[in-house]
Amino acid sequence: MAEGLSAAISEARLGRAEGGIPIGAALVVDGKVIATGHNRRIQNESSVHHGETNCLENAGRLPASVYARATMFTTLSPCDMCTGAILLYKIPRVVVGENANFYGGEDYLRQRGVEVVVVDDAECRQLMADFIEAEPALWNEDIGV
Amino acid sequence: MAEGLSAAISEARLGRAEGGIPIGAALVVDGKVIATGHNRRIQNESSVHHGETNCLENAGRLPASVYARATMFTTLSPCDMCTGAILLYKIPRVVVGENANFYGGEDYLRQRGVEVVVVDDAECRQLMADFIEAEPALWNEDIGV
Repeated sequence: MAEGLSAAISEARLGRAEGGIPIGAALVVDGKVIATGHNRRIQNESSVHHGETNCLENAGRLPASVYARATMFTTLSPCDMCTGAILLYKIPRVVVGENANFYGGEDYLRQRGVEVVVVDDAECRQLMADFIEAEPALWNEDIGV
Repeated sequence: MAEGLSAAISEARLGRAEGGIPIGAALVVDGKVIATGHNRRIQNESSVHHGETNCLENAGRLPASVYARATMFTTLSPCDMCTGAILLYKIPRVVVGENANFYGGEDYLRQRGVEVVVVDDAECRQLMADFIEAEPALWNEDIGV
């Protein structure tokens, strides 16, 4: 588990270094990180490349059998869109870095049979808290507020 | 309403002409089509650019006040990911061309307060039926089966 979260955090930090929103994700299959991604709202002027969706895009076109063995690691509780992407591809397990700064679709994921593990990682929390304090308008835009 | 659905159908036909999956969408605000998009799985090797998400991406970064006045037109009942994208941006109304070939997140959208109108358009139905018959494996990949 440590490797997946660590890869997601590296992506979040990379996003921040690019001037973007510090949310990262990693897709792990059979114990290996097969793709990573991060929020690209600023970098790509994108409204749909969040951490998890960008990671899925970077993973390429995968058969359902691969998603069925996957765990999605994300530094922050997944928003409704990323929740839906996880459900679309029937990814059975999601590891969430933190949900103190934002609480997304965890209840709905569980209701739909997805295992959700919340790590409550201090680094993830700090990354988001610092960003939200520095860029509240940008953060609100990212979550549709 | 006719203009929004018509724009979505044009996008679906364009996607098919490009060798892609024939699902299109249009975002209408204050009676005007402000963006359109279509499924780009084949064209971009993309797992996240469905009709609705591609349309949202093409719409650019919009303030919440614009989404609040928007209607999403889509030729096909929205999958879980596109359902989530609509919920993320709090788009209050969705017009669905057809849901005979695929029934997506309509119940969840309604449960979350979104108005969903199903047109049951014959052209939308035929486009998808022809595609699913011709490319069943590709269609299954698109819906995570």
